[in-house]
Amino acid sequence: MSSTYGENLKLCIFGQSHGAAIGMTLDGIPAGLAVDFDALQAFLDRRSPGQGDWSTPRKESDQPEFLAGIVDGYTCGAPIAAVIRNTNTRSGDYEELKDRPRPGHADFTAQMKYGGFQDAAGGGHFSGRLTAPLCIAGGLCKGWLEALGIRIGAHIIRIGSEAAGGFDPLQPQLDQVGQFFPTLNADAAERFQAAIAAAKAQGDSVGGMIQCAITGLPAGLGEPMFGGVESRIAQIVYGIPAVKSVAFGIGEQVATLNGSTCNDAFAIENGKIVTETNRCGGILGGITNGMPVLFTAAFKPTPSISKPQKTVSLSQMEETQLQVKGRHDPCIVPRAVPVVEAAAAIAVMDMLLGNTQTPRRKD
Amino acid sequence: MSSTYGENLKLCIFGQSHGAAIGMTLDGIPAGLAVDFDALQAFLDRRSPGQGDWSTPRKESDQPEFLAGIVDGYTCGAPIAAVIRNTNTRSGDYEELKDRPRPGHADFTAQMKYGGFQDAAGGGHFSGRLTAPLCIAGGLCKGWLEALGIRIGAHIIRIGSEAAGGFDPLQPQLDQVGQFFPTLNADAAERFQAAIAAAKAQGDSVGGMIQCAITGLPAGLGEPMFGGVESRIAQIVYGIPAVKSVAFGIGEQVATLNGSTCNDAFAIENGKIVTETNRCGGILGGITNGMPVLFTAAFKPTPSISKPQKTVSLSQMEETQLQVKGRHDPCIVPRAVPVVEAAAAIAVMDMLLGNTQTPRRKD
Amino acid sequence: MSSTYGENLKLCIFGQSHGAAIGMTLDGIPAGLAVDFDALQAFLDRRSPGQGDWSTPRKESDQPEFLAGIVDGYTCGAPIAAVIRNTNTRSGDYEELKDRPRPGHADFTAQMKYGGFQDAAGGGHFSGRLTAPLCIAGGLCKGWLEALGIRIGAHIIRIGSEAAGGFDPLQPQLDQVGQFFPTLNADAAERFQAAIAAAKAQGDSVGGMIQCAITGLPAGLGEPMFGGVESRIAQIVYGIPAVKSVAFGIGEQVATLNGSTCNDAFAIENGKIVTETNRCGGILGGITNGMPVLFTAAFKPTPSISKPQKTVSLSQMEETQLQVKGRHDPCIVPRAVPVVEAAAAIAVMDMLLGNTQTPRRKD
Amino acid sequence: MSSTYGENLKLCIFGQSHGAAIGMTLDGIPAGLAVDFDALQAFLDRRSPGQGDWSTPRKESDQPEFLAGIVDGYTCGAPIAAVIRNTNTRSGDYEELKDRPRPGHADFTAQMKYGGFQDAAGGGHFSGRLTAPLCIAGGLCKGWLEALGIRIGAHIIRIGSEAAGGFDPLQPQLDQVGQFFPTLNADAAERFQAAIAAAKAQGDSVGGMIQCAITGLPAGLGEPMFGGVESRIAQIVYGIPAVKSVAFGIGEQVATLNGSTCNDAFAIENGKIVTETNRCGGILGGITNGMPVLFTAAFKPTPSISKPQKTVSLSQMEETQLQVKGRHDPCIVPRAVPVVEAAAAIAVMDMLLGNTQTPRRKD
Repeated sequence: MSSTYGENLKLCIFGQSHGAAIGMTLDGIPAGLAVDFDALQAFLDRRSPGQGDWSTPRKESDQPEFLAGIVDGYTCGAPIAAVIRNTNTRSGDYEELKDRPRPGHADFTAQMKYGGFQDAAGGGHFSGRLTAPLCIAGGLCKGWLEALGIRIGAHIIRIGSEAAGGFDPLQPQLDQVGQFFPTLNADAAERFQAAIAAAKAQGDSVGGMIQCAITGLPAGLGEPMFGGVESRIAQIVYGIPAVKSVAFGIGEQVATLNGSTCNDAFAIENGKIVTETNRCGGILGGITNGMPVLFTAAFKPTPSISKPQKTVSLSQMEETQLQVKGRHDPCIVPRAVPVVEAAAAIAVMDMLLGNTQTPRRKD
Repeated sequence: MSSTYGENLKLCIFGQSHGAAIGMTLDGIPAGLAVDFDALQAFLDRRSPGQGDWSTPRKESDQPEFLAGIVDGYTCGAPIAAVIRNTNTRSGDYEELKDRPRPGHADFTAQMKYGGFQDAAGGGHFSGRLTAPLCIAGGLCKGWLEALGIRIGAHIIRIGSEAAGGFDPLQPQLDQVGQFFPTLNADAAERFQAAIAAAKAQGDSVGGMIQCAITGLPAGLGEPMFGGVESRIAQIVYGIPAVKSVAFGIGEQVATLNGSTCNDAFAIENGKIVTETNRCGGILGGITNGMPVLFTAAFKPTPSISKPQKTVSLSQMEETQLQVKGRHDPCIVPRAVPVVEAAAAIAVMDMLLGNTQTPRRKD
Repeated sequence: MSSTYGENLKLCIFGQSHGAAIGMTLDGIPAGLAVDFDALQAFLDRRSPGQGDWSTPRKESDQPEFLAGIVDGYTCGAPIAAVIRNTNTRSGDYEELKDRPRPGHADFTAQMKYGGFQDAAGGGHFSGRLTAPLCIAGGLCKGWLEALGIRIGAHIIRIGSEAAGGFDPLQPQLDQVGQFFPTLNADAAERFQAAIAAAKAQGDSVGGMIQCAITGLPAGLGEPMFGGVESRIAQIVYGIPAVKSVAFGIGEQVATLNGSTCNDAFAIENGKIVTETNRCGGILGGITNGMPVLFTAAFKPTPSISKPQKTVSLSQMEETQLQVKGRHDPCIVPRAVPVVEAAAAIAVMDMLLGNTQTPRRKD
Repeated sequence: MSSTYGENLKLCIFGQSHGAAIGMTLDGIPAGLAVDFDALQAFLDRRSPGQGDWSTPRKESDQPEFLAGIVDGYTCGAPIAAVIRNTNTRSGDYEELKDRPRPGHADFTAQMKYGGFQDAAGGGHFSGRLTAPLCIAGGLCKGWLEALGIRIGAHIIRIGSEAAGGFDPLQPQLDQVGQFFPTLNADAAERFQAAIAAAKAQGDSVGGMIQCAITGLPAGLGEPMFGGVESRIAQIVYGIPAVKSVAFGIGEQVATLNGSTCNDAFAIENGKIVTETNRCGGILGGITNGMPVLFTAAFKPTPSISKPQKTVSLSQMEETQLQVKGRHDPCIVPRAVPVVEAAAAIAVMDMLLGNTQTPRRKD
């Protein structure tokens, strides 16, 4: 199914970039969960455009209207529905892109799949704008998880050739993230912003990488095989446009190590079983071990750049040039940070709702 | 759901390492598809243990018995069911592991989830042995896809510190893979085997990385957002034990590039639209563009090593030592190659069964 | 999952009777399907209140606003989303019902399930008003099916003690139904309306039965066992409030017959295989045989009546009396006719999207 | 999906009547549930053939072999898999039926769907024999539910023209059912058996009706709309071959009543809220009210009768006669009683696993 996620909750994301509205329905949430609308809006604002030199100047309010499922600040058990009106009107700017697809964008594949019936304006259903309703659902879930002691936070660990260190895998510094351009130190933020500015100055864009941590999860969450925590998180994180890699713990580094240097030794700390290191990212056999869950997502550079690019004319079936007009984020990574948190929150909420743990055997 | 995969087909993998049998059911396959049992067995044999110095000497036949769904060499529309009998008898060897969980293994998380009721013998349902029924389902799908002109092949690109180049992204050399220890050249195979032998000599294990290519897919396969090709493949590949990273195209490298160096330019070749490079791995917006689909999966080293390791006693709640007995693969990567192909084949078959493409608009 | 239906399409119905809006999302619909908004509105109007003495005088516009998924009159492949604003404001009328549940209504079970967090106003998510978005989805599907030559029509065959004959099972008279109060002859309509008026005059309500026919279905639609046509239709029809029986063909009468009098003999008519009778309602083994599909649904009388009824006070835990205020349909059956058609259309559309039929074997 | 059921558990039924084996996989069951193999076998024996003059003399052992998921008498959290070997060998008897489909049977629709690739022998996947693995899954669930105080029992209320009264809807007499030919009194059993014998004597068959009761369910189970208890039970009960009607409570009678005579008044009994009558069958708005759940299922007569019947030759496309050879049940209703119980048990288990009830609001 295309735009629907979840085993125990069902999230449907709808809308096109220049359609009447974007929004989401979220079914399967129990009644009685409190909703903090101010905290949710603050979360959504982290994704909003126009927050610095690094993002598109297009200004959207991104204030959701809740149509259903919440009464007097609590979920009522019925599906939650929310919409964000699009204020940008439809324009003819995109007819050209329908004939001359942007390299790196979904213009071409949408044409192949939908045969010309797709909504091409602004990228249609493939627009990064669709991450706003993902953040509505994720922001709600994040709040409910926090009430259970489960915290989620993400930060930028790479922009182009500039890199920075990751979280302490045993104690992720979640208090240091949560703002708009989250890095673990000011130096990294400066270097990253300079890299984005440099790309922008050249009419170009740049990619990057985000690391996300989830703390407070109980040991024993997740299912064997296809229902493992990695499977569930990877499926939804790959639903975020531009993601090309999802890795857990130390990720690809595991391929370079020996068992003796990769395994995380068990130890006892304050009467609780822990691992002394956390290379596995808190997951063994698809199931949480009680340590922080850690994963990274690599984002490709925004495909829409103002530099001329080679493409083809679908109607003429000939090679041609394309220079993308309009204003686009030179780097979507800063705005993608809350989106990654949202995706993680939805995946965790879904798993918790279906979690069946067995009390310890007595005999 | 734990051990069930698929939107349009439903695959259920069952069995425990030392139980009566392992197997699979595969529902939703159309009638009339031919089954080549010899080709299937040859595919399964690539996963079998005991094929060299690099794998466990435990010898299992891994010959499936088909119980249902296939009549006279053709699928009949009813669910397919197949089992492989386990010939290893249950032993008390694993009671110790139930109390002293192996670092890096699912022993501990299974205990946390199932409270002591899990089948601990041989890793139970978390054993790598469960990839055999995955290969039955995947081998069937692979054969049916080949009849449609869709080919799938994988090879090893890293063992520990030794690395080798990947496929030609425009024309993956699928004719050069398919054997037991597949690499694109003999030099790589030698270095990789030496790295495994070195780890084994030290009572240790080593990780590695596999790259997989899928050719012949139509443009327009996949769904937006959560039903994208990356989401569908990542979910099932993360169901393979030991995988900690799944990446598409050039993977994490996208984070280091600019739009102008990452985008794949469109061109026309023999009257067909192609991309001049294939950094995106054949997928844009979650949907295939007609170029080869490419992805990598990183495998951690086998956690079971004979070197002494630090762990805890669950019953005594004290730190202790563990020396894993028995014979284990010093590196599972060679045997995991067909498993990755199987996972890819199942994901593609699932997507094809649900594919709804629209003929090109006329007006 | 509560309010989500479908294997190949995913329909989510949201909203509460006195909330901001009701609506639906419909994911999985291919691109390029034409939408006739006038025909859809005419279909929705058949469900609207205030059409005669038999329905509640509450007047709602029931004009959907489409937010996503349709561009220039064609589906674009993205999820379809539509809302209907509620114009009735919230009132305190229902606080009493939260404490003193109406017999026969979901007031009590909602309280048991949602612990007081449910939206009690107007029945909340359990209101018959939620059948409006079901009719949006169903009306869309009905139109698309008609373009394929598949027609769906329903009529009333019983109101209280008054009954009328059903469709000709071989050639359902679909041209005679489709209006607001559909019966196969004027006499039945008169008797039914009189029965409703009689119930209303006594401050009471009355139940009834609807029969629905689907023609033009290909033989071979449906899946064995749990994916049979009966299973798929029954699941969604039981989602309509007040339905307590769903039966196919001659329904319960099959229990009274012998094989020789129940089996439908095969014959050849104009070079096509038909059955001479159609007691099975066009379904054998869960799969269509090419004859009209026929089913009935029994509706209980509206539980909200103005006669005094015995109930309990949840807060006082004592027995008490209740006299329901406000205006309610004395019989929901007339307005439920298009809802039954909508449910059938959604189920058929879902099955068609997942249909995998095998071309006839050649060897 | 064809042969797979469940939202929170996943049941797959596989096998064909004359294939190597029939069986089932059941995924999603928590670890630590005890399995009483003797009780399960006793339950399965109630479905076995050859128990009287009323069933086919074909003798099958129907002893399941458990391959996975159960260790030392307890579920281990991994999928449960069980098979029953078929001892009847394949025969050519059925080639004729492939060309001349039996009226009332799935022969014709299977041919339309599978194009000749279906397993026609003994009805293949459509055989009533497939209810044996349904009873394995259902028998397991029934046992686990009993441990929670939830009891399920069914009995025969009609065979042909002979009818008998149903359960006391407030206190179903579950202690009086559970044997092979369950009726509430000896007189009914005699009349029913005589009716079956009469049909058999004429080379004919006869239909019937079963009523099922579920007691001990908590109030608040089920979900609104498509996840209601009626929807969930009807979907699976319609998966039993020959069922043409599924109704809850007083079923179709609701259509004949007024609200004042149909509503079940609430009352307080021993400090607990009950209803004074139970016409709704324990379900309001799709959700249990704590009273017994009651439903009926109507079964058509066995289509395979020895009387000559009119059919067509598919190869010749001409009308012809058919006289079904072999031995068939003159009435499947007695053997279907445990199957109905099994279906109900699976549906209830599935709902309980996904149940999210909210503690009562405090403010």
